[in-house]
Amino acid sequence: MKNIALTLMYDGSNYFGYQRQTGFLTIQQVVEECISKITKEKITVSGCGRTDSGVHALNYVLSFKTNSQMPVDKYPVALNSILPNDISVKSAKEVSDDFDGRFSVKQKTYIYKIHNSEIPNPFVQNYAYHYKYKLDLEKMKEAAKYIVGTHDFKCFMASGAQVKTTVRTVYELTFEQNGDDIQMSITSNGFLYNMVRIIAGTLMYVGGGKLNPQDVKNIIESKDRRLAGITAPPQGLYLKSVEY
Amino acid sequence: MKNIALTLMYDGSNYFGYQRQTGFLTIQQVVEECISKITKEKITVSGCGRTDSGVHALNYVLSFKTNSQMPVDKYPVALNSILPNDISVKSAKEVSDDFDGRFSVKQKTYIYKIHNSEIPNPFVQNYAYHYKYKLDLEKMKEAAKYIVGTHDFKCFMASGAQVKTTVRTVYELTFEQNGDDIQMSITSNGFLYNMVRIIAGTLMYVGGGKLNPQDVKNIIESKDRRLAGITAPPQGLYLKSVEY
Repeated sequence: MKNIALTLMYDGSNYFGYQRQTGFLTIQQVVEECISKITKEKITVSGCGRTDSGVHALNYVLSFKTNSQMPVDKYPVALNSILPNDISVKSAKEVSDDFDGRFSVKQKTYIYKIHNSEIPNPFVQNYAYHYKYKLDLEKMKEAAKYIVGTHDFKCFMASGAQVKTTVRTVYELTFEQNGDDIQMSITSNGFLYNMVRIIAGTLMYVGGGKLNPQDVKNIIESKDRRLAGITAPPQGLYLKSVEY
Repeated sequence: MKNIALTLMYDGSNYFGYQRQTGFLTIQQVVEECISKITKEKITVSGCGRTDSGVHALNYVLSFKTNSQMPVDKYPVALNSILPNDISVKSAKEVSDDFDGRFSVKQKTYIYKIHNSEIPNPFVQNYAYHYKYKLDLEKMKEAAKYIVGTHDFKCFMASGAQVKTTVRTVYELTFEQNGDDIQMSITSNGFLYNMVRIIAGTLMYVGGGKLNPQDVKNIIESKDRRLAGITAPPQGLYLKSVEY
């Protein structure tokens, strides 16, 4: 039996997120069905995380075990020939028996894209958050410094989510600007539910002048979701990479 | 009465092209309906050209006449608030009485985008032509030299189209490459039906080794559509700019 890890890229616009849900089209269901067709077994995959409806992935990693004799390097071409156009397999490799796409994750990087322009751009409607008022990127960078490090990030978790601990370590939180396009990049050892989108929404409040950079420090200390900004919409969010 | 020119950007993926057709959703119909709502008159626009189903525009110019007293600089915000997300108005200006969005055109520039990679990219499925075999860009550039200039381009016109003359002048035909993304840019005083897509298809035959660069000279001289390459698919094509 082989343990195989695949790296996928997908446009999440037309899916109800990554994780299988009865009655809804999800990335996991489509990928499992396609792998099963090729290996002629019932395949269950272990993926590096859940992404919500409308969220995209540039390098999503999942693993599965199979008795198929097909050489591992044939998987990308075989799967891309039957997957829908909005999901593609970038690479496949054999991994050790104990590797698990979900449980072996050490850290992940997400990006959040903002199109900051008075005029909406039709080509990014599903691929960035259009925000028409000018954002002050320097203030957003200043506020980002309070987020980097090990903190209780309860204020940045969607209310109602259940986890053992809300302490996480953010290794890096940076911004890049290219014309009207702003991209936030965040790396952490783990993300709470909606954490990246709430951080993006909160830093946009800072960039738009509703909050001062220093307020972010107090918001984190408060552990109160109500003091943070909005949950920025899903279409700006991309899982960029996973480290094992 | 004012004569107003608008510059639009649109994602053509969900439309049956630019030009009004009974029973099919087109850019022209949607834009005319939205302008009519704002001016409270029945508006007919004169647009700089037809684009086919699935073809996009970065700077599409059209003009219309109105008795509305609304200041011209209010049109972009007013229209963007009611247009669907895949069409947006970039600018509006008052033009002289004799300006006509269609008949005053002097030259246009189109771009054609090719994603040249073994792995399909889900994010460009509607925005570029995915071609998986390596293209030789130097050969394509060499072949492009035979196209620049004033020629009878009958070989690059979809069969069945009716025009007075098939002579056109191509001012510029260039290529840019950025990683796996190739972009062809072509400027002419006029384009025959499907001309850019047939030129793209023919130059891709050259890049893929099916034709030699010098063959393009003979194809033009033959005036025979059957000797040229395929009509490259619509999703790679963008109207980039119009000169008046």
